[in-house]
Amino acid sequence: MFKLPKYIEPDFSQEMFINAPDAVLQEAPVDKAAPRNFHATSIYPEYFKIDGKWYLAEDSRMDCVPVFEDGKIYVREFRNLKKGDKCVVGRTENCEEGIYVHSDCFEKEEAAKAATFAFRQNRSRETGFSYDYKQLVELLKHEKENGGYVVWVLGPACSFDAKARENFAKLVENGYVNALLAGNALATHDLEGGLLGTALGMDIKDQSPHVDGHYNHLDTINLINTHGAIPKFIEEENITDGIMHACVKNNVPFVLNGSIRDDGPLPEVYEHTYEGQDTIRSHVRKATTIIGMATVLHTIATGNMTPTYRVLEDGTIRPLYFYMVDTSEFAANKLGDRGSLSAKGIVTNVQDFMTNLAIGLEL
Amino acid sequence: MFKLPKYIEPDFSQEMFINAPDAVLQEAPVDKAAPRNFHATSIYPEYFKIDGKWYLAEDSRMDCVPVFEDGKIYVREFRNLKKGDKCVVGRTENCEEGIYVHSDCFEKEEAAKAATFAFRQNRSRETGFSYDYKQLVELLKHEKENGGYVVWVLGPACSFDAKARENFAKLVENGYVNALLAGNALATHDLEGGLLGTALGMDIKDQSPHVDGHYNHLDTINLINTHGAIPKFIEEENITDGIMHACVKNNVPFVLNGSIRDDGPLPEVYEHTYEGQDTIRSHVRKATTIIGMATVLHTIATGNMTPTYRVLEDGTIRPLYFYMVDTSEFAANKLGDRGSLSAKGIVTNVQDFMTNLAIGLEL
Amino acid sequence: MFKLPKYIEPDFSQEMFINAPDAVLQEAPVDKAAPRNFHATSIYPEYFKIDGKWYLAEDSRMDCVPVFEDGKIYVREFRNLKKGDKCVVGRTENCEEGIYVHSDCFEKEEAAKAATFAFRQNRSRETGFSYDYKQLVELLKHEKENGGYVVWVLGPACSFDAKARENFAKLVENGYVNALLAGNALATHDLEGGLLGTALGMDIKDQSPHVDGHYNHLDTINLINTHGAIPKFIEEENITDGIMHACVKNNVPFVLNGSIRDDGPLPEVYEHTYEGQDTIRSHVRKATTIIGMATVLHTIATGNMTPTYRVLEDGTIRPLYFYMVDTSEFAANKLGDRGSLSAKGIVTNVQDFMTNLAIGLEL
Amino acid sequence: MFKLPKYIEPDFSQEMFINAPDAVLQEAPVDKAAPRNFHATSIYPEYFKIDGKWYLAEDSRMDCVPVFEDGKIYVREFRNLKKGDKCVVGRTENCEEGIYVHSDCFEKEEAAKAATFAFRQNRSRETGFSYDYKQLVELLKHEKENGGYVVWVLGPACSFDAKARENFAKLVENGYVNALLAGNALATHDLEGGLLGTALGMDIKDQSPHVDGHYNHLDTINLINTHGAIPKFIEEENITDGIMHACVKNNVPFVLNGSIRDDGPLPEVYEHTYEGQDTIRSHVRKATTIIGMATVLHTIATGNMTPTYRVLEDGTIRPLYFYMVDTSEFAANKLGDRGSLSAKGIVTNVQDFMTNLAIGLEL
Repeated sequence: MFKLPKYIEPDFSQEMFINAPDAVLQEAPVDKAAPRNFHATSIYPEYFKIDGKWYLAEDSRMDCVPVFEDGKIYVREFRNLKKGDKCVVGRTENCEEGIYVHSDCFEKEEAAKAATFAFRQNRSRETGFSYDYKQLVELLKHEKENGGYVVWVLGPACSFDAKARENFAKLVENGYVNALLAGNALATHDLEGGLLGTALGMDIKDQSPHVDGHYNHLDTINLINTHGAIPKFIEEENITDGIMHACVKNNVPFVLNGSIRDDGPLPEVYEHTYEGQDTIRSHVRKATTIIGMATVLHTIATGNMTPTYRVLEDGTIRPLYFYMVDTSEFAANKLGDRGSLSAKGIVTNVQDFMTNLAIGLEL
Repeated sequence: MFKLPKYIEPDFSQEMFINAPDAVLQEAPVDKAAPRNFHATSIYPEYFKIDGKWYLAEDSRMDCVPVFEDGKIYVREFRNLKKGDKCVVGRTENCEEGIYVHSDCFEKEEAAKAATFAFRQNRSRETGFSYDYKQLVELLKHEKENGGYVVWVLGPACSFDAKARENFAKLVENGYVNALLAGNALATHDLEGGLLGTALGMDIKDQSPHVDGHYNHLDTINLINTHGAIPKFIEEENITDGIMHACVKNNVPFVLNGSIRDDGPLPEVYEHTYEGQDTIRSHVRKATTIIGMATVLHTIATGNMTPTYRVLEDGTIRPLYFYMVDTSEFAANKLGDRGSLSAKGIVTNVQDFMTNLAIGLEL
Repeated sequence: MFKLPKYIEPDFSQEMFINAPDAVLQEAPVDKAAPRNFHATSIYPEYFKIDGKWYLAEDSRMDCVPVFEDGKIYVREFRNLKKGDKCVVGRTENCEEGIYVHSDCFEKEEAAKAATFAFRQNRSRETGFSYDYKQLVELLKHEKENGGYVVWVLGPACSFDAKARENFAKLVENGYVNALLAGNALATHDLEGGLLGTALGMDIKDQSPHVDGHYNHLDTINLINTHGAIPKFIEEENITDGIMHACVKNNVPFVLNGSIRDDGPLPEVYEHTYEGQDTIRSHVRKATTIIGMATVLHTIATGNMTPTYRVLEDGTIRPLYFYMVDTSEFAANKLGDRGSLSAKGIVTNVQDFMTNLAIGLEL
Repeated sequence: MFKLPKYIEPDFSQEMFINAPDAVLQEAPVDKAAPRNFHATSIYPEYFKIDGKWYLAEDSRMDCVPVFEDGKIYVREFRNLKKGDKCVVGRTENCEEGIYVHSDCFEKEEAAKAATFAFRQNRSRETGFSYDYKQLVELLKHEKENGGYVVWVLGPACSFDAKARENFAKLVENGYVNALLAGNALATHDLEGGLLGTALGMDIKDQSPHVDGHYNHLDTINLINTHGAIPKFIEEENITDGIMHACVKNNVPFVLNGSIRDDGPLPEVYEHTYEGQDTIRSHVRKATTIIGMATVLHTIATGNMTPTYRVLEDGTIRPLYFYMVDTSEFAANKLGDRGSLSAKGIVTNVQDFMTNLAIGLEL
């Protein structure tokens, strides 16, 4: 049923491409800085003409610098630039300076559908979402069957309810989760749920407050830190349910990034912000679908490094889908101005979102 | 499984009640105005001592005036007062002036649960809601089996999605809806869905825009007005699905109230604001559970005239439950400061809320 | 400094206009309904060719039906149609059926500015607003000096703070308010402030709760209803400040519309929804600038009947400006999809908005 | 006019204190973990009885562990605990285990005012704020005259408008800012404004888009990184206005914390999350008033480490005031459940908030 739209290769035999000059390369003057007039990448596929040949930046992200190295275009964050890196300069997008930004690159089923997406960019509490659920269910099945890589980005609200934890665990167990990106709080409250049955001291089954419950998340952190690692804590404290438990048991990699709001942190948390960013990107580089739930910080962080396309190992190019689920329109639409059909906001509570997905996937 | 908490009758043999003076009655000086120092009712059961006997206001609502007439206490809006109505005056609540406000009147299962509700009054996107769903499913089953009267209050967002319309229709068909309160827009867009498959011109199945779709709701209104009544329109235009269709086919009464935002209005819409209010209250007087979805205007209107208790025909007194579902915390909590365990906010999209309910009720 | 953009008259000597057929007129089949295929008006100036001559709908609003009568185009709500009214039919906009919608009708200073507005339609907490303040201050001065008609639409939040009431009163006293549109609650709480120094029982100067303060708005309503009219209440109870006081003293007309949420209502409140709508439109027909503050219901109601242009008495055509001020982006942008440069959202608290305006206007 | 409320010293001659046992100290079992049953601190002053003497934790914050060392109580984050640290254990608060939490510790002017604050904890768009402005203006004057330490926490929205940048600069220049806490984005967009007159490419004076403006923040970052330091960039690129410029010129320390959402980062940004936290706390340890504006991440981070009191150098104890300004109620109230009179939410746009403050302070 579900079909990925096909990539439209640029026709390099066109005059525009043939007559284009080579892209100009200039060296980064110091570490962490590009030459003036550097080209910055977008979320779209971009081609650069070097020695008469057009190179695709295979692994791109927006607001970075294309660097030519070892016969390949690398898309590098400013902080990762080294003095002497050969950076593409020029800010045109239609071959004038040997740079081509291919923004309209996937086949559309029908003109009508194309119009739809343009119109629907801004989504609100008054948008109908059942079509999105249907599409997403089909997409997830497709990803599972075809070796896709689905990255989930979770905010702490995903762990405050017993059923929500259960539903996410089912997604993991059934192979719909290839990586989990989150923060210290998600892991803490999920593991508090596994250890003590609460989140921030409230019972995750019936929301009743436990006695001295405000100690529960601190006791959880302290016990994990005493054990020294989340898997060891899960093992030795006999944790048998929840999000982190499912990831550990099913060998799904998780990336926990620290923030200045954290208690703790737990042992696995990345303490260095940009090491954390690099680790997120290491998963985004493989991602074919990304779903952000109830976290602006982590979803935007991930979205910032997510292009609209993925070059698969066999060289084919496909869309990279991005969903953002939040009760707040401001959050759900925050990535919407990326101008891409692949970033869709769904305005709802993530607990219900996961219930709906679980039903759609027959979990 | 589900058990209604018992009503705690005041113990009128206590000195406080025995020693209380009779409540003072004074006549309304003109139509639509009470005497100075009038007593205003609350959401709780209130008793008034008249000629030595304590009378319960059986059918109360907040911010109104208790009037003694024909051996009974009537709770009357200011606008419905007539010159000469015998109004209770006095603003104390503990028998000092013959008035007793019985705010803590239902048995609580356990102290812990009581504490829960106090703590949970303010509900957010970070509250766990699966317990509320469970409770609500049990409550709705109880209401259906025991002759309860469930009033639903719907905003237009309930009609913008095919599945949401379908789910609400199922609730109606299966006997979980005793009355529908809504506005002109809900009926218009639902019937636009039935006639043309759109809401405000967007396809309710896949959100694609129809050609000239901005005419669709106007064409719908115009056709209904040409027919002169919603049931006639449904009949003659062969409408076979949706919210209004389900109500008409299942003889569920609907009350449509006009507002100054309306197009139209449709023929059944109450054009006079306070006739509309009186009609809402005629349903609230029977209600045992009220569920407001995605409308601040109509839900607050209904909530304003809803007490925490219902006197059944056999004289027993039970809680009246009130839920408010909205993606906005501001809306979901707007009735929360009523200080009652019966007003619960659920922060989510109503489409998902209905899906969840339908599943819980096995529809 | 401030200059109104000029209206661009269509060039009726163009072939498109000359070759256009006459618009087709058909009779309304019954009261309150138009013929099938009726034309619905937009927010833009529209011209209709009748007997070879192009007529402008001088006093338009969206989603209504153009009716030709007595040599003039009237733009009539469905509910105001009478059987036999001669309605324009046809849904094209470029002369194909004798209908011309003139959407791009005001001169733009520069191309860059034009682009700006397109880009800025969606405004958020992260938009800079000081330019809007500057523009609005200039606009209000222009309106005052040139006989403009400035309509203010106020939600109850405008009356909850002493300084906000004071600032609005200054706007009235200094001639910046030509009409006030609001609901029962705005008038009630403002007059509660004048009578008892509170709004919903909280002190409007320091937000401290008054003893028995929950009676204050009811006492206010009751006293007004006892007097029978707001001006009489102001006179006899010696109210000396606030919004309603300023309007009454300065002969600024106020329109109070009822809603199903109301207590009361106060004597001047329109009880019939569509009489109320007609009264709002009677002010909109004169308006040159409209500013909605902290009310979705009343601002959208007003916005729905507001076109982008005003035909002045001397026949010149100018833009009609519309501002909507709210802390919620959803509210502030609700009219933004009208596609017009004249509907601008400002995301802030109305108290601060009024302070800023008062300073800008040197009040 | 403004008077700080007095601290109420506990009366240690009371039996409760005299009969209390010594607090139990246990050693941290490993680095970064406390012994089981550790005591966790609150936002209130806490006293611990050790060797018969009551010690105040002078420099506290919530959710940390009291450690006795060198005759003093240190309040230490879990991550800063070292194996062998002598931690207080016990979870009672009224001397039962030698621990006393002094939650009601400042004199209240009058009972009525006390009630006020309890009632007002949850603040919304419908709260009157002019009293808060008045109080805050007096507080800031008091702080300036009496050597207070005012910490400002700014989100990027503070830099998107020319007037907002100007107003904050005035606060700095006039001595109302003792430290600035922010993130990479605030500094980037403020300096983009100084360099190119835009924020994210939109003109900060009139919101018009600049040509190729999406490069502006990247060009700014790149140029700063080329210079290697913000002060050097300001110097060499002749930046003459804005927030960062004012801080640099007036020797106001600024702390920029990185987050995983960042571009860049700028050279001064803390890359290690918990070094950043420690640096924030180094300013909180001196703070007497903290004002968070339009940033949930940084304000909550700061709020988490802020107690309700400050022990001054001369040993006197005073309240530590905390304000949080945001258009979103969710954000503005996020710290409100801390149960303290010192955390106040103001629901408005920070641009207007600063204008209002500047006027109040006659800047």
